Amino acid sequence: MNTYYIGLDIGGTAIKIGLFDNNDELKQKTEIPTRLHLSGAHILSDSVEACSKLLDTEDVDWNSVQGIGVGVPGLVKDDNYIVRCVNLGWENVDLGKELYALTKVRNVRAINDAKAAALGEWWKGGHGQCSSAVMITLGTGIGGGVIMNGQIVNGAFGSAGELSHFPLVPDETEPCACGKFGHLQQYASAEGIVHQFCKKLRIENKPTILSNHENLTAKNIIDAAREEDKLAKEVFDDAVKKIAQTMAMVTSVIDPELFLIGGGMSKAGDFLIDAIRKEYRRCVILFSEDTRIEQAVLGNDAGIYGAVKYVMDHIKREAS
Amino acid sequence: MNTYYIGLDIGGTAIKIGLFDNNDELKQKTEIPTRLHLSGAHILSDSVEACSKLLDTEDVDWNSVQGIGVGVPGLVKDDNYIVRCVNLGWENVDLGKELYALTKVRNVRAINDAKAAALGEWWKGGHGQCSSAVMITLGTGIGGGVIMNGQIVNGAFGSAGELSHFPLVPDETEPCACGKFGHLQQYASAEGIVHQFCKKLRIENKPTILSNHENLTAKNIIDAAREEDKLAKEVFDDAVKKIAQTMAMVTSVIDPELFLIGGGMSKAGDFLIDAIRKEYRRCVILFSEDTRIEQAVLGNDAGIYGAVKYVMDHIKREAS
Repeated sequence: MNTYYIGLDIGGTAIKIGLFDNNDELKQKTEIPTRLHLSGAHILSDSVEACSKLLDTEDVDWNSVQGIGVGVPGLVKDDNYIVRCVNLGWENVDLGKELYALTKVRNVRAINDAKAAALGEWWKGGHGQCSSAVMITLGTGIGGGVIMNGQIVNGAFGSAGELSHFPLVPDETEPCACGKFGHLQQYASAEGIVHQFCKKLRIENKPTILSNHENLTAKNIIDAAREEDKLAKEVFDDAVKKIAQTMAMVTSVIDPELFLIGGGMSKAGDFLIDAIRKEYRRCVILFSEDTRIEQAVLGNDAGIYGAVKYVMDHIKREAS
Repeated sequence: MNTYYIGLDIGGTAIKIGLFDNNDELKQKTEIPTRLHLSGAHILSDSVEACSKLLDTEDVDWNSVQGIGVGVPGLVKDDNYIVRCVNLGWENVDLGKELYALTKVRNVRAINDAKAAALGEWWKGGHGQCSSAVMITLGTGIGGGVIMNGQIVNGAFGSAGELSHFPLVPDETEPCACGKFGHLQQYASAEGIVHQFCKKLRIENKPTILSNHENLTAKNIIDAAREEDKLAKEVFDDAVKKIAQTMAMVTSVIDPELFLIGGGMSKAGDFLIDAIRKEYRRCVILFSEDTRIEQAVLGNDAGIYGAVKYVMDHIKREAS
């Protein structure tokens, strides 16, 4: 009998689902909208319904499913209990129990979505064999995931890889969303870049091709920086400096073989990656100037790959 | 037959040697001066001679020795080849080969001395069971060691745990000893604290009880800070801030269960540790405010413990 594994990536707007066979191959995938009302009470039943349709297309049933891996945008406890997920309206969701009730699948493993993306990209992004890697996801916020010995690192309180709240600028007077000060995402996330740009525009009142732009995005600013717009370039350069400095610090801690840059901002491609490489080399410890820095390639699929890998590894460990 | 293990900690002024039995107990220890002339050519034979004397006191010979672990102040390749050790005058020393020639012991494992100290303190410092810990050694320079899953992390280029060169202050104009800028040890090592104090004294010309002090040490400055000397307090507070900020960053990467503060400066005890705890709590990511932060207790013995643990673990892995 063929066996299957399911990777779920539950986000605030969409739920991505991948059905994998026991050769680690993605057989089917789909995406459904996330219904947020009633504190996200429909999310799991909607997901299971969509999974059932995928199983139908392969002409198999839930008995063939060995495990379900779930990426969620929040804090996970004990690998299957969701303490809180603001974006989904979830609090204290026992994912293992609830999904078992709906599917009779015993192996359910939940993982923070940024960690899932890191694990998936490391596993199936085609970046070659390496046992340690760190992914930085530059999106609306900033996510991160640390892989060592081929496994995601969670840490004592689940904070490993939380590069969004990397306390870079001790003297910052504006608070981060978390209430503390000077965190990386205040400067280098898509939201942070827009915020810093608007702040500079307001205070310094420098000329910029974006001065009359409405609904400014990080992409607009990066594009303007590419065109040598002075103000946009200043904000972009500062973001790059802070990302590279953070990476250099990561290297002084675990010295990974590979950095992966993902998230919406990474679509800026070589313009961003080359700038990060140059700045990283400038500030990192001497011996580690040649760390590989690569653009993530799986995009939105990284999460389902990572979620399924997480439960697959769990099942293998249990069996050994 | 009882079996034994040897831990060597080779420093620029002294070689510390510990003889351990197969119950992980330190049976004998000794210390000899490091003879640096002839590019450190006598170091290994001196060490072996001193080890032989220790073995004699236990009435056993080299045949009973299962392994030798060696801590060295430099970069180690492949666990037994020393690329360069400036303090010892060593370049390209094949430690495994040379110690085998002198002792016929096959299991020789070398480890950077700061990493050895971390491993030793984690293992035998009485800090309770934990699988992940980070030690920061605040001495003349700054050393570090990262332990995950009970093993020291070396990293892709051997730079893991190199907290001395943590690139904290991107705008620094004075170079670190390594030639790059704004590294932690420029502000928070014993040497760094003295340097920052003298610089402040020269530039700001503030009154201080230390103004006529000759041969100023970090201890003098920390003692003066304790007595509320304003200038000394400024320098001390800045060092504490930077140490705590570095630790908070380490937490955003791997979120360890335990931080250990060692090295000569750690003798300042609670005055230093409490200040670090307070500052750490202020800047670390919300969920991890309660990370344990403890003073290292093994002092100069940490290195021999760590070196011997390193070779013991290697032998266990080989056997399994």
